[in-house]
Amino acid sequence: MLEFFFAPDTCALASHIALKDAGAEIRLRRIDFGKAEQRSPDYLKVNPKGRVPALVTERGILTETPAILAYIAQSFPAAGLAPLDDAFAFAQVQAFNSYLCSTLHVAHAHRMRGHRWVDAADAEAIAAMQRKVPESVAACYAYIEEQVFAGPFVMGESYSIADPYLFTLAQWMEGDGVDPRGFPKLATHRQMMRSRPMVQGALRAENA
Amino acid sequence: MLEFFFAPDTCALASHIALKDAGAEIRLRRIDFGKAEQRSPDYLKVNPKGRVPALVTERGILTETPAILAYIAQSFPAAGLAPLDDAFAFAQVQAFNSYLCSTLHVAHAHRMRGHRWVDAADAEAIAAMQRKVPESVAACYAYIEEQVFAGPFVMGESYSIADPYLFTLAQWMEGDGVDPRGFPKLATHRQMMRSRPMVQGALRAENA
Repeated sequence: MLEFFFAPDTCALASHIALKDAGAEIRLRRIDFGKAEQRSPDYLKVNPKGRVPALVTERGILTETPAILAYIAQSFPAAGLAPLDDAFAFAQVQAFNSYLCSTLHVAHAHRMRGHRWVDAADAEAIAAMQRKVPESVAACYAYIEEQVFAGPFVMGESYSIADPYLFTLAQWMEGDGVDPRGFPKLATHRQMMRSRPMVQGALRAENA
Repeated sequence: MLEFFFAPDTCALASHIALKDAGAEIRLRRIDFGKAEQRSPDYLKVNPKGRVPALVTERGILTETPAILAYIAQSFPAAGLAPLDDAFAFAQVQAFNSYLCSTLHVAHAHRMRGHRWVDAADAEAIAAMQRKVPESVAACYAYIEEQVFAGPFVMGESYSIADPYLFTLAQWMEGDGVDPRGFPKLATHRQMMRSRPMVQGALRAENA
């Protein structure tokens, strides 16, 4: 059985939804950020980076959302979560997920995790980062809405591991000061995703 | 024939080396950052993100280093650039490359590209970011050296798409104020990579 380490309201939700989509049998392991459990010696043995998600398999432990998502798609091919037999189409999914990970999530992280990139005691610099977030995050959503999103799913007619990842990060849009009305295709995608039973199941399990 | 857009001294080198490792026939297209060509209307048609690398295939255009690297490995399986038949081992490569993309490269980018995350006119905040770079980048290398790097290649006995990517970013170590002597395994890896003909060929082509 797979063991899945997560914290509520983090990017771990993307992999959690995909695991449900895949029909994987998982044991959920909640990490309490409020108690800094991600920095506990026990959890650092699971993921020395002190982050979530982490997926414990019989072969070892995997981290990093794009890698976990592709692993789920490849390990449960019957679920059809990625175009596994088409290197170009698979690379398009990977490129999208990589962009979410390295650009959108990073832009967002400057609101609450600015201490990663400036001295934590430098309140002015932390505030300067926070002021930029609405603009830098909105620029990411503009790129996705205008240049990438095919509809009704990210890649077009087929649902893929790009969808739960986009949905997960898009949950943070309002908190980042970005008006969802500026991105009508993405707003429709969020609504559609919220109505999916596996998304609702994952959210219920995380908040139980 | 594949067309490969790059700029010298950028992360595009990783994909360039992998294309050479794969024996791919490519046409190199240099983008001059000094002339802001990455923001030119012509190049924005290739990559609306205004970044390098971009790989033009007969199916369409791919961006994002981890996606391009995996595409090269899957498209040229005889080159043995990734464990394509082992979802777990492939995910380990992907996790490493995703970490480089979203954590190491991002930490580095706060030295020269701080305007992505604060107002460009806020010289104090830009300087605050630059001051943190030696520490945040060194923390990434400590994680890689102590927790991930198997040796002699990143993943162990087999060369993979993780190697040119690590080599490419590690070229920036000294510029980021990180002493390479603190990371002896990675220093040995850099030396070994520098001696590889495909690495030397890619560097020569980029600087021609």
